[in-house]
Amino acid sequence: MTYLFNQPSAFAAELIEGFVAANADKVRQVAGGVVRSTRSQPNTVAVIVGGGSGHYPAFAGLVGQGLAHGAAMGNLFASPSAQQIYNVARAAHNGAGVLLMFGNYAGDVLHFGQACERLRAEGIACEILAVTDDISSASKHEVAKRRGVAGDLCVFKAACAAAEAGDDLATVLKKSHHANDRTRTFGVAFGGCTLPGATHPLFEVEKGRMALGLGIHGEPGISETDVPSADELAELFVERLLSEVPSDVKQIEGHRVAVILNGLGSVKYEELFVVYRRVAQLLEAAGLKVVQPDVGEFVTSFNMAGASLTLMWLDDELETLWCAPANAPAYRKGSVLVAEPLSAEEREESTEEALPQASAESQHSAQRVLHILESVADLLQRNAKKLGDIDAVAGDGDHGIGMERGVLGAVEKAREVAARGAGAGSLLCRAADAWADKAGGTSGALWGVALTALGTAIGDSQSPDAQRVATGVRDAKDGIMHFGKAKVGDKTMVDVLVPFSDSLNAAVAEGASLTDAWLAAAIVADKAAQDTAQLVPKMGRARPLAEKSVGTPDAGAISLAMIVNTVGELLKEQKASQ
Amino acid sequence: MTYLFNQPSAFAAELIEGFVAANADKVRQVAGGVVRSTRSQPNTVAVIVGGGSGHYPAFAGLVGQGLAHGAAMGNLFASPSAQQIYNVARAAHNGAGVLLMFGNYAGDVLHFGQACERLRAEGIACEILAVTDDISSASKHEVAKRRGVAGDLCVFKAACAAAEAGDDLATVLKKSHHANDRTRTFGVAFGGCTLPGATHPLFEVEKGRMALGLGIHGEPGISETDVPSADELAELFVERLLSEVPSDVKQIEGHRVAVILNGLGSVKYEELFVVYRRVAQLLEAAGLKVVQPDVGEFVTSFNMAGASLTLMWLDDELETLWCAPANAPAYRKGSVLVAEPLSAEEREESTEEALPQASAESQHSAQRVLHILESVADLLQRNAKKLGDIDAVAGDGDHGIGMERGVLGAVEKAREVAARGAGAGSLLCRAADAWADKAGGTSGALWGVALTALGTAIGDSQSPDAQRVATGVRDAKDGIMHFGKAKVGDKTMVDVLVPFSDSLNAAVAEGASLTDAWLAAAIVADKAAQDTAQLVPKMGRARPLAEKSVGTPDAGAISLAMIVNTVGELLKEQKASQ
Repeated sequence: MTYLFNQPSAFAAELIEGFVAANADKVRQVAGGVVRSTRSQPNTVAVIVGGGSGHYPAFAGLVGQGLAHGAAMGNLFASPSAQQIYNVARAAHNGAGVLLMFGNYAGDVLHFGQACERLRAEGIACEILAVTDDISSASKHEVAKRRGVAGDLCVFKAACAAAEAGDDLATVLKKSHHANDRTRTFGVAFGGCTLPGATHPLFEVEKGRMALGLGIHGEPGISETDVPSADELAELFVERLLSEVPSDVKQIEGHRVAVILNGLGSVKYEELFVVYRRVAQLLEAAGLKVVQPDVGEFVTSFNMAGASLTLMWLDDELETLWCAPANAPAYRKGSVLVAEPLSAEEREESTEEALPQASAESQHSAQRVLHILESVADLLQRNAKKLGDIDAVAGDGDHGIGMERGVLGAVEKAREVAARGAGAGSLLCRAADAWADKAGGTSGALWGVALTALGTAIGDSQSPDAQRVATGVRDAKDGIMHFGKAKVGDKTMVDVLVPFSDSLNAAVAEGASLTDAWLAAAIVADKAAQDTAQLVPKMGRARPLAEKSVGTPDAGAISLAMIVNTVGELLKEQKASQ
Repeated sequence: MTYLFNQPSAFAAELIEGFVAANADKVRQVAGGVVRSTRSQPNTVAVIVGGGSGHYPAFAGLVGQGLAHGAAMGNLFASPSAQQIYNVARAAHNGAGVLLMFGNYAGDVLHFGQACERLRAEGIACEILAVTDDISSASKHEVAKRRGVAGDLCVFKAACAAAEAGDDLATVLKKSHHANDRTRTFGVAFGGCTLPGATHPLFEVEKGRMALGLGIHGEPGISETDVPSADELAELFVERLLSEVPSDVKQIEGHRVAVILNGLGSVKYEELFVVYRRVAQLLEAAGLKVVQPDVGEFVTSFNMAGASLTLMWLDDELETLWCAPANAPAYRKGSVLVAEPLSAEEREESTEEALPQASAESQHSAQRVLHILESVADLLQRNAKKLGDIDAVAGDGDHGIGMERGVLGAVEKAREVAARGAGAGSLLCRAADAWADKAGGTSGALWGVALTALGTAIGDSQSPDAQRVATGVRDAKDGIMHFGKAKVGDKTMVDVLVPFSDSLNAAVAEGASLTDAWLAAAIVADKAAQDTAQLVPKMGRARPLAEKSVGTPDAGAISLAMIVNTVGELLKEQKASQ
């Protein structure tokens, strides 16, 4: 149960404000999250961690000397947008590149990946690392599919200590991968949290039962048992973790391990200590030497009832990194000389970029693009409820609201940059960021990808001609398929985007005007959207609902078709008025 | 809900072991709790904190550099015994006296008071301070009756920083009282915790409602409302605390305050940050300057759902103490150079005292006292269920079990010290400690007081004659009434002890033998115990149950009468066999 909140939609933003107010000696707020408020070593790698909010002290509580340089903080249990991550990274960048670190979840992989590409495009060296410590979430043959849970802390700690010590980006990344390869977590759950304003818990476990390997957002576990005694749970934890010793650990006897016994929220300290008592006995009996164990709350899920045990198999390098001093709001160790606070000027250094120079022609086109965006916003506002109803058949019914939030954010940003003289390409790219940022979720991120691709193809020098637009649409299609992983036939917007892009590009290649080619392709899109009614969703939706959805088209497909048809009408009007 | 435990009765002991295993760099275990495992400044005051377990990080999590020197750790929600506190204080004593600090609860006041007297009797300068920060627990005209809650941390922090800085005991005490006078807490609750092995929560608050001022063990609150928004709760907190500004604070505008927003267990960090966002705004609007706020879990009640706000009104002295560096398992601030660990020899320094020299006569008497204790143990084991049933009418039904645990502990200790040549007086004193230690609760503590008084009166030089025993019984009566606060007519053991002591002393004064006087007084005790059936309990019991208990005698009165009658029979037998 979450008891204390104002508007649930404002919760994530308000908690950042409160967190920063309470920890101003260590962190300061920037758009998208927090960065250190103290001076870092110049020319060291900046390590940015992040993910959805609701896991405190992950991620913001881990920002400070010896730990992270910044945290990108998404909405509750939702990845931060690429724009948020990018902002935090820009604010934290210290002259020697950036490492972006996060738990291995689809949304995070997508957004951190995009942010990384954008930073590189600006000439900032950047790498990403997705933590994969949860041994229950995929087999040892598919380690790359595993989720990141409490072992995040071990891998972050290693990376950050290496960065603090002055290692270059390649070395920090190498040591981080080594830490990730050496970190394993096994977790159990007794019940899920109830998010602010929600009426039901995220998941439930039958009273008296315990789920093994259940994810911290309720992702499926591997089995269920009766609730064990504290000692029995310790035995289960140790047995599972010792059944998967990293392959480069040659001998268990005498090996050193970092240990985290983590509470997810409402399994409390006293219980954790009773469990740890037996864990320590068992590790000792196995011949292991425990180095600086942590027992407490490190990666939570609000007040979820659950616990996990993490082992990081140390060598000299990892032990040094694990034991290095740190001084973050929620994690401190060792002898620390508190770092100097940044000056007021340094704190206020803007992370706002200048807009690229645009031709007068492109600035003029930008006004037309803005007009189109405003019309699309009007369309989506009128149809938000209808899209939500369609989405509710097989999904969570938030498609209409998400699209509305996204397009309104995009329009607001487009107006701002248009007033500052942005060209059509930059206007679309900035609108794309705002769309992803405000809409949230996978759909928001994919629309951000699409509009960025289109904006990049159009550029800021000439007016968008048929060839540039057709190329932009094809790049948008490729980007969405690359990041979203959906194929034609999966009942997603891809089922519309592929035939639309193909039709548009074919007509343009044959010499059709933009308006004619677009209008013809829009008819194709409309039919393809209706045809999704006969498909069964393939990705990320519960099977019973998926079956039930046959006969109803896909909401994402419908909204895309609506948009391309509205844009077609506007192109026709604009052409007529020229 | 507490999910993870082994035997519920072993929980408190096992959590200490686990806590120490996880934090061996900072703490080590001694009988009764923990002390620092690092070297303290020589000849500084040792500050010992403590109370029942179940409030982590209070109290053990606050032991370390710049904070406490030791923590006495009682059973779950039960005061540590005087023996436990004494042991911890002896182990931590650093040559410059001891300050014992605890929240203001009857059991803690009693046990810490006794421990203080014992330390003083051994020549160790000792003072006590009960924290009284909870403004809901008594009016501002009865501050001394207020409970100690999250403000414990403020007052402990001030005391410990003063001790660390080398202040003498009187100065540390004076600064601590000043900190206590300047500290105020207001708390709310949404629901209570369920202790290990219990089937029901300690207390419940109706769904959608919030109790104001409810204590962390479910002590009665002052009112109830609907659950407010986070902002509304912040407003309530600040309004209540600003309605009671310390009388020596002349001007609010510009005043500095230390702030703790404390979660009781399952109101989580994110919620606390959302509340703190508004708290910070309101304090600023009131003109207050917040110094190093703490938002998190500092004094919990397992996974109780609740939160509290604490203000300590700072002046230069208190600000210095509040901001001084600290490095305890659960509380760290400032620049810290980690202290040197104690050597293995220092760690193993025994805290076991030598037994006082006893006469052969007293050693012989000790064997008779041991025999009496063994017979009483037999009596109480046979009657444990009956006493529990009587107690269950108006109380929690644990009187029989508690007495049984107490007497078995007493017998075990008595056997040990008898074998080491203890005199009758010392044997009774050690048995008294063990009784209080093992029985726990108020009843256990009062039996400890009684047997200590008796043992002290008897001494270790001569055999216990009628006068010494009668004096000891009178001292026991006075001690119980002093520490237990009950009067005749309150339906407690006092209703038996007073007439028994009066009758015994009157007969001895008239020249009766011990056996004759005791047997006559035992008859008086028997009748007095039966007569408690007509009384209504006055203290610490819910009124509906209290009314219902008329017609049933008091369990504590009955057990005392049983014991004095059994002792009478044994005196008769021993006399006959001489």
